[in-house]
Amino acid sequence: MNATAESAPVRGTAAHRPATAVILAAGLGTRMKSDRPKVMHPLAGRPMLRYLLDNAASVFDRIVVVVGPGMEQVASLAAPHAVVVQHDRLGTAHAALQAADLFGDGDVAILYGDNPLITADTMRRLLACRAEDGVGLALLAMRPRDPARYGRVVTEGGLVRRIVEWADATPQERAIDLCNAGVLCAGADAFGAWLHAVGNDNAKGEYYLGDVVAQAVADGRQVRAVEAAEDELRGINSRAELAEAEACVQGRLRAAALDGGATLVAPETVFLSADTVLEPDVTVQPHVVFGPGVTVRRGAEIRAFSHLEGCVVGPGALIGPYARLRPGSDVGPDAHVGNFVELKAVTMGAGAKANHLTYLGDATVGPGTNIGAGTISCNYDGVFKHRTTIGEGCFIGSDSILVAPVAIGDGALVAAGSVITEDVPPGALALGRARQTNKDGRGAAMRAALRKKKEQG
Amino acid sequence: MNATAESAPVRGTAAHRPATAVILAAGLGTRMKSDRPKVMHPLAGRPMLRYLLDNAASVFDRIVVVVGPGMEQVASLAAPHAVVVQHDRLGTAHAALQAADLFGDGDVAILYGDNPLITADTMRRLLACRAEDGVGLALLAMRPRDPARYGRVVTEGGLVRRIVEWADATPQERAIDLCNAGVLCAGADAFGAWLHAVGNDNAKGEYYLGDVVAQAVADGRQVRAVEAAEDELRGINSRAELAEAEACVQGRLRAAALDGGATLVAPETVFLSADTVLEPDVTVQPHVVFGPGVTVRRGAEIRAFSHLEGCVVGPGALIGPYARLRPGSDVGPDAHVGNFVELKAVTMGAGAKANHLTYLGDATVGPGTNIGAGTISCNYDGVFKHRTTIGEGCFIGSDSILVAPVAIGDGALVAAGSVITEDVPPGALALGRARQTNKDGRGAAMRAALRKKKEQG
Amino acid sequence: MNATAESAPVRGTAAHRPATAVILAAGLGTRMKSDRPKVMHPLAGRPMLRYLLDNAASVFDRIVVVVGPGMEQVASLAAPHAVVVQHDRLGTAHAALQAADLFGDGDVAILYGDNPLITADTMRRLLACRAEDGVGLALLAMRPRDPARYGRVVTEGGLVRRIVEWADATPQERAIDLCNAGVLCAGADAFGAWLHAVGNDNAKGEYYLGDVVAQAVADGRQVRAVEAAEDELRGINSRAELAEAEACVQGRLRAAALDGGATLVAPETVFLSADTVLEPDVTVQPHVVFGPGVTVRRGAEIRAFSHLEGCVVGPGALIGPYARLRPGSDVGPDAHVGNFVELKAVTMGAGAKANHLTYLGDATVGPGTNIGAGTISCNYDGVFKHRTTIGEGCFIGSDSILVAPVAIGDGALVAAGSVITEDVPPGALALGRARQTNKDGRGAAMRAALRKKKEQG
Repeated sequence: MNATAESAPVRGTAAHRPATAVILAAGLGTRMKSDRPKVMHPLAGRPMLRYLLDNAASVFDRIVVVVGPGMEQVASLAAPHAVVVQHDRLGTAHAALQAADLFGDGDVAILYGDNPLITADTMRRLLACRAEDGVGLALLAMRPRDPARYGRVVTEGGLVRRIVEWADATPQERAIDLCNAGVLCAGADAFGAWLHAVGNDNAKGEYYLGDVVAQAVADGRQVRAVEAAEDELRGINSRAELAEAEACVQGRLRAAALDGGATLVAPETVFLSADTVLEPDVTVQPHVVFGPGVTVRRGAEIRAFSHLEGCVVGPGALIGPYARLRPGSDVGPDAHVGNFVELKAVTMGAGAKANHLTYLGDATVGPGTNIGAGTISCNYDGVFKHRTTIGEGCFIGSDSILVAPVAIGDGALVAAGSVITEDVPPGALALGRARQTNKDGRGAAMRAALRKKKEQG
Repeated sequence: MNATAESAPVRGTAAHRPATAVILAAGLGTRMKSDRPKVMHPLAGRPMLRYLLDNAASVFDRIVVVVGPGMEQVASLAAPHAVVVQHDRLGTAHAALQAADLFGDGDVAILYGDNPLITADTMRRLLACRAEDGVGLALLAMRPRDPARYGRVVTEGGLVRRIVEWADATPQERAIDLCNAGVLCAGADAFGAWLHAVGNDNAKGEYYLGDVVAQAVADGRQVRAVEAAEDELRGINSRAELAEAEACVQGRLRAAALDGGATLVAPETVFLSADTVLEPDVTVQPHVVFGPGVTVRRGAEIRAFSHLEGCVVGPGALIGPYARLRPGSDVGPDAHVGNFVELKAVTMGAGAKANHLTYLGDATVGPGTNIGAGTISCNYDGVFKHRTTIGEGCFIGSDSILVAPVAIGDGALVAAGSVITEDVPPGALALGRARQTNKDGRGAAMRAALRKKKEQG
Repeated sequence: MNATAESAPVRGTAAHRPATAVILAAGLGTRMKSDRPKVMHPLAGRPMLRYLLDNAASVFDRIVVVVGPGMEQVASLAAPHAVVVQHDRLGTAHAALQAADLFGDGDVAILYGDNPLITADTMRRLLACRAEDGVGLALLAMRPRDPARYGRVVTEGGLVRRIVEWADATPQERAIDLCNAGVLCAGADAFGAWLHAVGNDNAKGEYYLGDVVAQAVADGRQVRAVEAAEDELRGINSRAELAEAEACVQGRLRAAALDGGATLVAPETVFLSADTVLEPDVTVQPHVVFGPGVTVRRGAEIRAFSHLEGCVVGPGALIGPYARLRPGSDVGPDAHVGNFVELKAVTMGAGAKANHLTYLGDATVGPGTNIGAGTISCNYDGVFKHRTTIGEGCFIGSDSILVAPVAIGDGALVAAGSVITEDVPPGALALGRARQTNKDGRGAAMRAALRKKKEQG
């Protein structure tokens, strides 16, 4: 895993000067107590680093990711962007320096992999601030509800004079509510020079990125703060903070879904993915989970306790309660998928129904076909997966077993409880079950015997 | 859809003067992005307009609903109350004027269909205020946590002097925290005259109901504000506000359920309907949804992930987790309905059990009967629905199929895996399944063959 | 149910002086509207009294529980600690007096059964305060967000001068934000004397424990307040307060789980028990319920809508969505338990899978075995429960029925839809199902006949 001299091109930036984003992702995240690199922990199902990569790619000309040794997983995610390795963890300024050879000749912003909620718009505002006449360094700041022990941003006449750490702050300085978020942006050359000048004469012996601010001021350059919402700038250092960030992401996704014209009866109980599409007049009842890759068309209803991934739900379709749609499923207009039903890679035609206790995998169900309660498609023989094809207007009796590969013709009828191992012609009746016999008095006798046995211990 | 000269009588009002409620329901609600009229969007499963109709009907002598053109659905819901159509949408005063012929000769209050959480008690307080000596106009006001851009109520010596819109307000006026909710009440004659006098000389060219306040003041009539809680008075203009209103309704329903002596382990995860009845010492575990028409008797427990509609749960019964009770179900005392079990129109006797992976529809289950795991009743032949009757003290073996119409006598025993197509006499043993054969070595051989095929591609 | 002269020894206390906790648990809790004694209502699945008993047992030398007449259930829970009965409910001081014979000769603290969230640490701080030189009485106090109608603690120079009830307080006193929590600690002899001196000359004619404070002050003894968090000290008098306390307990459990290195994607939707063990890098998706006795090993994932009780989930295992693990289940490393699957007392070997619509009870499943969709083990014959044993590397075809007692040998294959009533040798293929027959045109004919019948009414 080596530094790539040329990073991959990124999408759409209209800045006059080239701009490079350096994302620091080498941290161990020990407070996470995880075997997984911190920036790989997911938010709404995607690694937190991906949020930064996607947003930065829409703003910056290139991206450099600084990873720790052995973090192949992070490097793979970062590809095709440039990746450099920080072999020794000597502090944030040291981490940023590892990328110095890739700063280019425009502006450079330092972002943090564990600070993934910053929006593209905020990144743009940071670059725009830096681009103003006379501004040497721009930084992101926030006014948190509880400023706690954040470093304070001391300003004078609209310019940042210095960052003062909580521990060193006077009571007057602690009363300042503008806090440092750590994100900085400067011209490549100056930034490189300042980073090299940062020392490690402090309690932990680390090189701190924040010291660059003092360097810029000392150089007589204007330093300006760009304010952003606390929600964008909070770092993730523990599982509790990860959960808070997830709540923040979910809040954004829910608000967007509502704004788009979907009804979420109880938004706080609905979990969305970044790519969930809910068309207008979709209704989502309480307690629903959307994994990645779901589109729900106009007027469809997703009832309580449903779980959807990688599927399309057609207009007016009725899903759940307790329906599980797995990847590759496509439910047609006005079709019904009911309780305790699982579909995996199933295409259901318009108006088709599978309402109760059913498993269908690798199957096609024709329009208007009714799948009885307890139907199971056997798509797996222990080694291969096979397809089941059911025609239009069929009636599959309850508790039938469809042993794939098998095809059932249009308008066919399968008797309840049948094991279907061969194709059924269109319009045919298929049976595969034993006949019933009643043995008079035998039920009562058997239970009496069992009870007697129990009494006798 | 025409104005009905005589509106239907409404229940119980003891006011000295007749009182008419005019409910404005003609708005398009474009921010909802919906094909459905705004006032038809549901809260706790009922259209929001229904809340207003029910509460107003308990307070006012008659109700007039103003709808937009083509809103047949709204008119149907409003029936048998009077309905008038506002053909052109020229503002709230114009909408109210459409009902002027039905004002009668008492007092008139103007309510909003998208402001459905106002309580009957608040409506009564509004009427009572208007009825005070010398009061010409009474209006509802609130002190919202965030007054934002609401119009402010300017008072002097306890009387309302004027309503000032946010845009026109001075800093001093903006500092007023008493905000206008838009709901007005006045004598019919004066109200009609003021409405006719309202002009549309404003940016949008609309006739605003709020201008009536200025008219009343100009006429030298006393105008008084009746304060109510913000939760009652917030309007619903978007899906986000619909979700907030739902949360408000659920909060009221949960509080009432707790107050009545039910334990809701996690009230915020339980969704109730307006008519849900939970008797004392009912326990509801987290994540439960109650659709309309559910009664749960004393001491019953509803476990997590259950979904109930239109059913009665007897005392001491145990439901769930993952039980779905559909309309027409009646679960007897101490009966159990367990995981992944669906009942539709099923009567279960005392102590009967259906604990695992079962679908029963249109069935009667006798007291003490045990329904084995995976039992399916086939109640639908594709055209007709049929009934299944199971007697007292029966034992239905697992994975049995009961093809309706079919009756199983008291004390009968059905062997596991049987397809039951004929009645079973009391005490009998019914069998309907194939015998097992074992083919030595054949399983291993088949899998070896499959694996070989896979290796060969 | 009589007072036990000697209470049982309790664990680990290092206090210089012996210390006795008296827990008042005789209250009727009428606002709960319950047939159950108030202190028996559960929090996170355990009676609220148990929290106090457990915490007090880790701090005090002995525990005395004061119960009401007929509260056998409470007395059983309290055992082996001393139990005394308060036959007449004449107030809290009267209740405490019932335990006076068991005060011993050290310190005595009075706790409340309906105030169960007080931590062991706070109990220790109370004892430590009382043990300070010159302190005659220590009490717990809090500064609630909304002090409302709590009694106020009036202090002077760090000493408590008196408790003033809300009703009797001056505006200045009401402005005090330090509130009385009612928990007191004093030397046994003095406490006994003060309790005897408390009168009942008040509106309700009751003997109030709070009056002891005035006695101590009158005796010239120092009274000190020990502050604790509001969450620890709030009482439970209604179902709404019970729900709030549950939320508080869940909040503590969730925070501990996150702190221990588990990811809870949406902690507010996950319900834990006091003894839930989640190892590092366990992921819990939204909407999961953990009953008592669950351990989840490193790297396992519990998906949405799962419900676990009394089970162990091995490292890397994948549970749910919609999996129900019941007591006695042990899921091996990397095993999968999927949707609509219930396990009761089942041991699953490493890498075994039961992914769809399955009920297994009293069973052993060997490593690498695959259980097909819809498999049901019949472990109950109506009287006895029997075991099912499935070997290693087996393939159980879908919708099979395993009638216990039955054993399936290693590497055996069961054909889909078979009823297995006899043991299957290793490597064998077992079949037990009817053959399929197709009747051409018969399906279409049957449906046509049904439709005709319907048309004819």
